[in-house]
Amino acid sequence: MNRERVRALLHAVKQGAVDPDEALESLARLPFVDVPDARVDTHRALRHGLPEVVYAPGKSAEQIAAIAATLAAAGQDLLVTRVDAVLARALEGRIASAVYDARARILWAGAEEVPIAGRGTIAVVCAGTADVPVAAEAALVARRFGNRVAELSDVGVAGLHRLLAANEVLREARVLVVVAGMEGALPSVVGGLVDKPVIAVPTSVGYGASFGGVTALLAMLTSCASNVCVVNIDNGFGAAYVATLINRL
Amino acid sequence: MNRERVRALLHAVKQGAVDPDEALESLARLPFVDVPDARVDTHRALRHGLPEVVYAPGKSAEQIAAIAATLAAAGQDLLVTRVDAVLARALEGRIASAVYDARARILWAGAEEVPIAGRGTIAVVCAGTADVPVAAEAALVARRFGNRVAELSDVGVAGLHRLLAANEVLREARVLVVVAGMEGALPSVVGGLVDKPVIAVPTSVGYGASFGGVTALLAMLTSCASNVCVVNIDNGFGAAYVATLINRL
Amino acid sequence: MNRERVRALLHAVKQGAVDPDEALESLARLPFVDVPDARVDTHRALRHGLPEVVYAPGKSAEQIAAIAATLAAAGQDLLVTRVDAVLARALEGRIASAVYDARARILWAGAEEVPIAGRGTIAVVCAGTADVPVAAEAALVARRFGNRVAELSDVGVAGLHRLLAANEVLREARVLVVVAGMEGALPSVVGGLVDKPVIAVPTSVGYGASFGGVTALLAMLTSCASNVCVVNIDNGFGAAYVATLINRL
Amino acid sequence: MNRERVRALLHAVKQGAVDPDEALESLARLPFVDVPDARVDTHRALRHGLPEVVYAPGKSAEQIAAIAATLAAAGQDLLVTRVDAVLARALEGRIASAVYDARARILWAGAEEVPIAGRGTIAVVCAGTADVPVAAEAALVARRFGNRVAELSDVGVAGLHRLLAANEVLREARVLVVVAGMEGALPSVVGGLVDKPVIAVPTSVGYGASFGGVTALLAMLTSCASNVCVVNIDNGFGAAYVATLINRL
Amino acid sequence: MNRERVRALLHAVKQGAVDPDEALESLARLPFVDVPDARVDTHRALRHGLPEVVYAPGKSAEQIAAIAATLAAAGQDLLVTRVDAVLARALEGRIASAVYDARARILWAGAEEVPIAGRGTIAVVCAGTADVPVAAEAALVARRFGNRVAELSDVGVAGLHRLLAANEVLREARVLVVVAGMEGALPSVVGGLVDKPVIAVPTSVGYGASFGGVTALLAMLTSCASNVCVVNIDNGFGAAYVATLINRL
Amino acid sequence: MNRERVRALLHAVKQGAVDPDEALESLARLPFVDVPDARVDTHRALRHGLPEVVYAPGKSAEQIAAIAATLAAAGQDLLVTRVDAVLARALEGRIASAVYDARARILWAGAEEVPIAGRGTIAVVCAGTADVPVAAEAALVARRFGNRVAELSDVGVAGLHRLLAANEVLREARVLVVVAGMEGALPSVVGGLVDKPVIAVPTSVGYGASFGGVTALLAMLTSCASNVCVVNIDNGFGAAYVATLINRL
Amino acid sequence: MNRERVRALLHAVKQGAVDPDEALESLARLPFVDVPDARVDTHRALRHGLPEVVYAPGKSAEQIAAIAATLAAAGQDLLVTRVDAVLARALEGRIASAVYDARARILWAGAEEVPIAGRGTIAVVCAGTADVPVAAEAALVARRFGNRVAELSDVGVAGLHRLLAANEVLREARVLVVVAGMEGALPSVVGGLVDKPVIAVPTSVGYGASFGGVTALLAMLTSCASNVCVVNIDNGFGAAYVATLINRL
Amino acid sequence: MNRERVRALLHAVKQGAVDPDEALESLARLPFVDVPDARVDTHRALRHGLPEVVYAPGKSAEQIAAIAATLAAAGQDLLVTRVDAVLARALEGRIASAVYDARARILWAGAEEVPIAGRGTIAVVCAGTADVPVAAEAALVARRFGNRVAELSDVGVAGLHRLLAANEVLREARVLVVVAGMEGALPSVVGGLVDKPVIAVPTSVGYGASFGGVTALLAMLTSCASNVCVVNIDNGFGAAYVATLINRL
Repeated sequence: MNRERVRALLHAVKQGAVDPDEALESLARLPFVDVPDARVDTHRALRHGLPEVVYAPGKSAEQIAAIAATLAAAGQDLLVTRVDAVLARALEGRIASAVYDARARILWAGAEEVPIAGRGTIAVVCAGTADVPVAAEAALVARRFGNRVAELSDVGVAGLHRLLAANEVLREARVLVVVAGMEGALPSVVGGLVDKPVIAVPTSVGYGASFGGVTALLAMLTSCASNVCVVNIDNGFGAAYVATLINRL
Repeated sequence: MNRERVRALLHAVKQGAVDPDEALESLARLPFVDVPDARVDTHRALRHGLPEVVYAPGKSAEQIAAIAATLAAAGQDLLVTRVDAVLARALEGRIASAVYDARARILWAGAEEVPIAGRGTIAVVCAGTADVPVAAEAALVARRFGNRVAELSDVGVAGLHRLLAANEVLREARVLVVVAGMEGALPSVVGGLVDKPVIAVPTSVGYGASFGGVTALLAMLTSCASNVCVVNIDNGFGAAYVATLINRL
Repeated sequence: MNRERVRALLHAVKQGAVDPDEALESLARLPFVDVPDARVDTHRALRHGLPEVVYAPGKSAEQIAAIAATLAAAGQDLLVTRVDAVLARALEGRIASAVYDARARILWAGAEEVPIAGRGTIAVVCAGTADVPVAAEAALVARRFGNRVAELSDVGVAGLHRLLAANEVLREARVLVVVAGMEGALPSVVGGLVDKPVIAVPTSVGYGASFGGVTALLAMLTSCASNVCVVNIDNGFGAAYVATLINRL
Repeated sequence: MNRERVRALLHAVKQGAVDPDEALESLARLPFVDVPDARVDTHRALRHGLPEVVYAPGKSAEQIAAIAATLAAAGQDLLVTRVDAVLARALEGRIASAVYDARARILWAGAEEVPIAGRGTIAVVCAGTADVPVAAEAALVARRFGNRVAELSDVGVAGLHRLLAANEVLREARVLVVVAGMEGALPSVVGGLVDKPVIAVPTSVGYGASFGGVTALLAMLTSCASNVCVVNIDNGFGAAYVATLINRL
Repeated sequence: MNRERVRALLHAVKQGAVDPDEALESLARLPFVDVPDARVDTHRALRHGLPEVVYAPGKSAEQIAAIAATLAAAGQDLLVTRVDAVLARALEGRIASAVYDARARILWAGAEEVPIAGRGTIAVVCAGTADVPVAAEAALVARRFGNRVAELSDVGVAGLHRLLAANEVLREARVLVVVAGMEGALPSVVGGLVDKPVIAVPTSVGYGASFGGVTALLAMLTSCASNVCVVNIDNGFGAAYVATLINRL
Repeated sequence: MNRERVRALLHAVKQGAVDPDEALESLARLPFVDVPDARVDTHRALRHGLPEVVYAPGKSAEQIAAIAATLAAAGQDLLVTRVDAVLARALEGRIASAVYDARARILWAGAEEVPIAGRGTIAVVCAGTADVPVAAEAALVARRFGNRVAELSDVGVAGLHRLLAANEVLREARVLVVVAGMEGALPSVVGGLVDKPVIAVPTSVGYGASFGGVTALLAMLTSCASNVCVVNIDNGFGAAYVATLINRL
Repeated sequence: MNRERVRALLHAVKQGAVDPDEALESLARLPFVDVPDARVDTHRALRHGLPEVVYAPGKSAEQIAAIAATLAAAGQDLLVTRVDAVLARALEGRIASAVYDARARILWAGAEEVPIAGRGTIAVVCAGTADVPVAAEAALVARRFGNRVAELSDVGVAGLHRLLAANEVLREARVLVVVAGMEGALPSVVGGLVDKPVIAVPTSVGYGASFGGVTALLAMLTSCASNVCVVNIDNGFGAAYVATLINRL
Repeated sequence: MNRERVRALLHAVKQGAVDPDEALESLARLPFVDVPDARVDTHRALRHGLPEVVYAPGKSAEQIAAIAATLAAAGQDLLVTRVDAVLARALEGRIASAVYDARARILWAGAEEVPIAGRGTIAVVCAGTADVPVAAEAALVARRFGNRVAELSDVGVAGLHRLLAANEVLREARVLVVVAGMEGALPSVVGGLVDKPVIAVPTSVGYGASFGGVTALLAMLTSCASNVCVVNIDNGFGAAYVATLINRL
């Protein structure tokens, strides 16, 4: 609720330009515009100066295409996450500008190039090859949100030399997104090597006692490195979102 | 592992100033100094330019006083967390400069005034009065780590007007720490009101189905606000640590 | 066990009109009539003055059609919940009067119009678009049970302005059903805005740490708003049932 | 947020009687008055026309007495829940009008008699003697909230005859609170005997696989009786709160 | 390990009729005969004087048919549990005497009539129609194991009158198997009505907080009726097995 | 609900000896007599021809002594379970005939000798010395309920020879109670050695991954021996109760 | 990080043969060679003198074939685990030397015969036929890693005689891998019979309270036999890996 | 069951030196001698050539002293684990030769020096100072079991340099015990640095989401290093036991 707009409105009421009852109505409804049926969290992104983001699961190609059309008419970009291959094909036929990244499961309908708005580099570090889809989601979202991104893959803690070899990448990042499944130990190790905020993303990679990512999640929450905070299992998007906000400070 | 120091060492080896075997020894041991028995995570804090921090549970007054003496001799500050009233009295008798904050359960042995090193303000927002100890820990740690801090208490989601009244505090913060127990909904609501990173801290406040903070933890991890990341239950210290790193960017 | 009918029976025994052994038999069997094979909880609904309700999963089209025929012959309405598209087509071919609502997954075989029996309006409030099927089930059941219903969708807690804009709808309701997945915070916020009973319905919407609705369920059970009570995950029907009983008081 | 007060305020702004900036301030702060340090959820109760309620655990006798003094000065009643014997003695020395009920662990500081405001009777039904403290809390809160209350104890499902003997009490209630630990089956049985809303309260009574009330909680959430909704483990207060709101409809 | 056979063997050793090394071999191998590949728990059944039982999941039609052939040659009966419709058709083509019961998912290859060996009647009581497959498994196994069986269905605790109407069946049983899903309350209620052992079988029927039968399982383990013991979720076979042993005493 | 007494009552109504309203009252209240305040499950025990049993935790010495006095006056025995040493001393001063067994934590107030009513022997088998209190409770309850009891201790599965040495005891039992903590494997092994019903009692003995008996409980529920059924953690009393009912068949 | 190679490198720097910056680079990168895209844990195996191992799930036939080609060119063996029948066919068409074992779900591309490198025999002991795939994986991996292997199947604890008959196999092993699902009791029993290390492998075999192997896992972790250690659910490969390292000592 | 002793016994029977019935008795009872009341798992230790071990919790000083006396008379050593300071004082007064190690909570009553029986060195590696009691238990048990032990403390993964500095200790060990709480990542990192078996011991150190060691336990079970196996939470004794058996191979 934009304080300045509220103050302006109240002054208009004082000057008789706006009726009190009308003002009351405005006070409540002001900061959003309706997009029919499937508007998930989009208004916040808008206020944050970021493209619209739609989480695909549970939405039809028709619904997503309708949103894309509305946004295109308004000159606004759209990023769709968790798009599987079948939905991607359906959307590519419906949205002219659609670009699909299969590894990151992301469809982009917007400007070809996004101007850099972040002040430093976001490093996206990934423990194993099976964690790559989540890391790729984080990396691509971060790029589409206007950040420089450095990716580092297959640097799991059971082969430390490989991680240490990339020490320079780690230390040059302004904020780090660290993705791992199974025992989820990588954020602790990376957290100990840098003095920047680390956003840990547990993945559902593993079997048996990894419980679909719960073990990695708990391990990251109990990390002995104090510069680690955590997002939900497989939530590469959320990690990139927080990292973007930090990188704009 | 400070790259510059390693390069200097290798050059010294090349010039014959340092023996290879001696260099090997140095390579491994360089970045830390031994404090006997209870050195928990202190070396990282040091490298991050922060005071030493000791987590009190499981340590005796003697052990903590010994660490304090070593640090005082080196002109370094010490912050002890989770200090209960009994331990506080024992420490105040042993450490001359000790200042105890009962609400935050923190003992400080160091400079009276810490210079401001953070670039903006960290808001510490707290849902209920029972969550205050955790919020106070976060706020005091943030201050001792050189940040400006704004505290906001008793603004739980079941009484929205109070939170909305403090909207200005929320929007002027550069990074926010949001503390809540029970259903842990406050970070979602705050996250929707600001465009800055929110670090959510679940507390163990509640009974029955709050399961010692697990419900709040899970709620925060599944927040529908994308700018929320999470630390461990009752971990006010960790939230302040991450917020400090962000606020120094 | 209708006390008056028991008293009447005992008087009939006293007067010799009924044999004691026969009375004993009647005492036990009185209040129900048999419908073969799939009579789930229907007798209670009957006694409550509501249409029969059948929970579809695990029942064949044949079984449901047989129940419908029996009830139609008796002039009684039937409401079938959790009917997927395939079963709906099969039932529409077998039950003449069947009306299927795909959004609510409900099939209705009964009077076109149900007279209003509730004294006020039941508000069905829904956090996100993914929660809509559960909210739609609650809303349609409430209507078929003779209530006025007001629906409010996509008013999640991370975008408070939208919820506050609908404040009037909330405050005019006599009882509220609040549906939310993920962190399940909406009932707490709504509960703080009204002074009426709130029936919270957690949904299985979400991924990772939402654990199929368990996180939302726990959050609702630990709500800091005292006027909130809770039903099972995805149980839109049950919430409408309780709301109907309250609305008839 | 009282709509009428907001409208009045806006009219005052229009007429120049109130300055816009001042109005802005009032808009946010209006509906609450500060009670220092320990104001838990009290404002909502106030708006609902109920006495203030304070949850005692974690508060000192001094803090509670201070709240009581403030309220007494304002002519308002106070109900304190979860008061153990030690705290009760300390409070009785500090609050003149304090009346303590050891069975319900409730301290009351207010009018001797509360006028009946509920339209019917609330039945509080309790499975075993070990569940009595929770049931007593529910019953006493309901009484202090202005309801007629009927109590029924020791009517566990393994001795049905006793419950059936009390059938009349069950059927004459307008709303029922049903309290049970261990397997938590009583609400299902009672729910089948009445056509009124049933608020189920699981208790932490039991050992081993009762997991501190979790088993009873889950059993109640999965009740095969559709007229059952549930509150948190041991939350007799919350059940009475919801029942009161229903009984005032 | 049959003590008499061991004593006989040792006497044979003493008399020189058996060589010590040979005896040692016999001591270990005596009580079983090999059936290739899929001999699950069959030797115990044999010693208990019961037909062979094979748990079908994970076994091919070929494997089961091979076992059946071996047993048929030895004049022994075979009972196969958890046989779905597809496997049943495959087996009926391979085993001449196969009789399939679709409701109980059991295939029988053996004598048409099993002589009664149990001393009384086993009652199999079932809460809802969805629980019927598990109850039917229990009932058919009990019959094939030589017991008289009385079945009682759809007598859930939310409609007590129906259960009470069947009181005679309950009280005439020598041992009872009680099957229920969801809140699993039926064994407690039945346990209170009889003075015989009750074997409770939780089923995986339900959704949300029923957690695939875990809630019913926990409820049965914490039953307030002392004559209840419990077997695994959906384990109708196991309940019938224990009931058979009891009924032979 | 004694059918014969109901029939007699109905005949009395027919003959005019009893008034219908009076009969109605009797019908409901017949089978129990009130003992003030702490009557836990006693009526069932009475109907089963067993002594009264009181579960001590949560009851005061005064309450238990009052029950004992009432029962003594009526010539009935009393068995109190889970009596710790402090309570035992308090009760021994209040109940003349009290006999306390510290190992089993049971206090007995009744006949010195209980006549044997069970037809065979109940074996109580115990895995480790730490499980002894639970096994002792089972054994002593079984004896006070009129059974011959054979006890077997310290026969854990990691030392099979000891268990095999006691094979005779196992095979001569008519029903077996098997008590184990930690991995809870003993019932499976014993179940494989006998052809009688085995009642498994998990104990809370262990640490770490034994989770207060949950691991043993789950292991027993998934036993590969089909003749095993299970009661709650540490519920030696319940196991003895079921075993007694079986042993009376 | 091979200390000798580091020392050699530092001496080379001293002698001017290697440039310090170049040395720094080497220090970090030395011990691994890149294999594109899917290098999971292979470098460790290499250093341990074992064939490369690839975990198949999540990898395409193309990716695996590419790795196989690279390794074949280098004269190195490849072992692929968790290969289902469909993938096996696809791989057999792409890799000339591929040998597929359907029971163990392992594909081998390497030397026909692996020389024995282990000093003794590894016994792989398996509780039930349903556990065989996991046991077969352990046994085949152990063989391909150069060990003598003795397999023992269907020796569950409910039929002890069969296990005791194989006592000699157990006692002749140098290290034992024990595989069991359901209650997971076999490692405890085997552990009591031998004085060698036992590696327990829980399997996901079972239903209901076996929770996909969690019950077996917990039972093995709480084993009363002190010579038991545990690997993840269904992790036959890991058990064989540890057993191999032990058998080479 | 010593095969040779059984064979000898059978030959004695054959030769008439031993009576068959007597032999039968011996067969069962042979391998153990009774120590009254508290013989926990001692016979296995004996057969393994190790001192007797008693787990103290739940045993009185009297019971332990009695065992010690019996063993001393037999010239056998005794190791008591989990001895707190109070018990230690009580035992030191009762057992002449008792030596108490407060850090490891172990009391030793036996030979001053234990001869080295292990072939290499066991490294006991410990993540944080709070984990030291568990590591100390492992180290002292390993020493008393006749192994050379190298201890490494405070080498948590968030400060890798310290661990890498100790690389030599790690690589010279024949088997490693790795102890860690919180996120339990250390075994994965150590496992990647060595080619020897690693026995991981999770500790209950931590708070909130560490769940008393469960998080560390799960992390270790899902380790991406294949040479890691796991024992129960805080089970330093068990790890040392397994390591000893490995080190004797």
